[in-house]
Amino acid sequence: MAPLRFCFDYISPYAYLAWHRIHGLAECHGRTVQPVPILFAALLNHHGHKGPAEIPSKRVYVFKDVVRTAAVQGVPLQPPPSHPFNPLLALRLTTAVTEPVQQRALIDALFHATWGGGDGVTDPDAVAALAEEVGVSDAVARATDPAVKEAVKQATADALAAGVFGVPTVLVDGELFWGVDSLDHLERFLAGRDPVTPELLDQWADLPASAGRSAR
Amino acid sequence: MAPLRFCFDYISPYAYLAWHRIHGLAECHGRTVQPVPILFAALLNHHGHKGPAEIPSKRVYVFKDVVRTAAVQGVPLQPPPSHPFNPLLALRLTTAVTEPVQQRALIDALFHATWGGGDGVTDPDAVAALAEEVGVSDAVARATDPAVKEAVKQATADALAAGVFGVPTVLVDGELFWGVDSLDHLERFLAGRDPVTPELLDQWADLPASAGRSAR
Repeated sequence: MAPLRFCFDYISPYAYLAWHRIHGLAECHGRTVQPVPILFAALLNHHGHKGPAEIPSKRVYVFKDVVRTAAVQGVPLQPPPSHPFNPLLALRLTTAVTEPVQQRALIDALFHATWGGGDGVTDPDAVAALAEEVGVSDAVARATDPAVKEAVKQATADALAAGVFGVPTVLVDGELFWGVDSLDHLERFLAGRDPVTPELLDQWADLPASAGRSAR
Repeated sequence: MAPLRFCFDYISPYAYLAWHRIHGLAECHGRTVQPVPILFAALLNHHGHKGPAEIPSKRVYVFKDVVRTAAVQGVPLQPPPSHPFNPLLALRLTTAVTEPVQQRALIDALFHATWGGGDGVTDPDAVAALAEEVGVSDAVARATDPAVKEAVKQATADALAAGVFGVPTVLVDGELFWGVDSLDHLERFLAGRDPVTPELLDQWADLPASAGRSAR
């Protein structure tokens, strides 16, 4: 069975919360998780869209929502030293480490450093030290390899081509599930209990517009 | 105790789904529901933001998500004749009818006409007929009263001023809860079990940015 392709960016607290659920969920349904680090900012740029932290009242709301969701999940949550921050070093290092067990430990560590009460993932020395702890040496050199930089760009472009518009998004069997709130839907999908059928989708796909925003 | 101010627009299938849950939830916690019809498009215009139906891959995803959520809630769901459509007639008529029992029946009918397999809410004759069934006569005349038009504008402006950025949003006791996914958080809030404390919020409120999108 195909793995669950978990598209994420460390910038997103919802990706952190979903990361805490995705492995158990995958195991329950005989699937594996394939982490796909992508740059969320590039998705927003592509779609001409604003991130949740870019609308002031939504930024405050999202923080509260994240605290509430973390409490329900029972996951430790602390704000990172800064936000937004540049996640590229962390995304690239994650891409450079391909051995699955080591990569998962690295992602655990980088997410914890970001949202679990750590020192963030923007300082190269701190990131190198944290990588060392999970057995990854030469972290900064590996993360700045031009081929690795290109791989993150390509993964982001591939995600866009697959219809991804936000993080976290799980891609599986031609479907995408966006956000921590969608994981229950993903679970039903994996159990063969998705209510979306091709016939139903046809009903919705060709819905004509009778008004646009400028017309109102 | 203050009512739950339910800010909504018929354009949103999530508002329809939340409408099906909000009354039971309010009753469980000794609250009443005060419907607040607002124009979602004006929120998007104000924030320079895109609606979920304005990003093509997100539009398809949202339809699937709505089908999935409706299945979980056990709520009938059919696509309206067109989408997006102009919701102003329905919003204004709802605003014009202020008697609570009659207003609730009218909202039920207008939501059903939109998302429950009806003929939509853009045709004045159809809307008038539907209003007649719940005891509202002269629907079109009432909906086109300049004071009613102004009241919808004012309610939208008031919602924006209260920090509302999407629909459905429930405003209560100085907090806002956005989206059908937030109703479980609202329920815990009403039960006095909200994990968000002023101290916690202080930690998040002054988070400095260390990167912006243009810098990446």
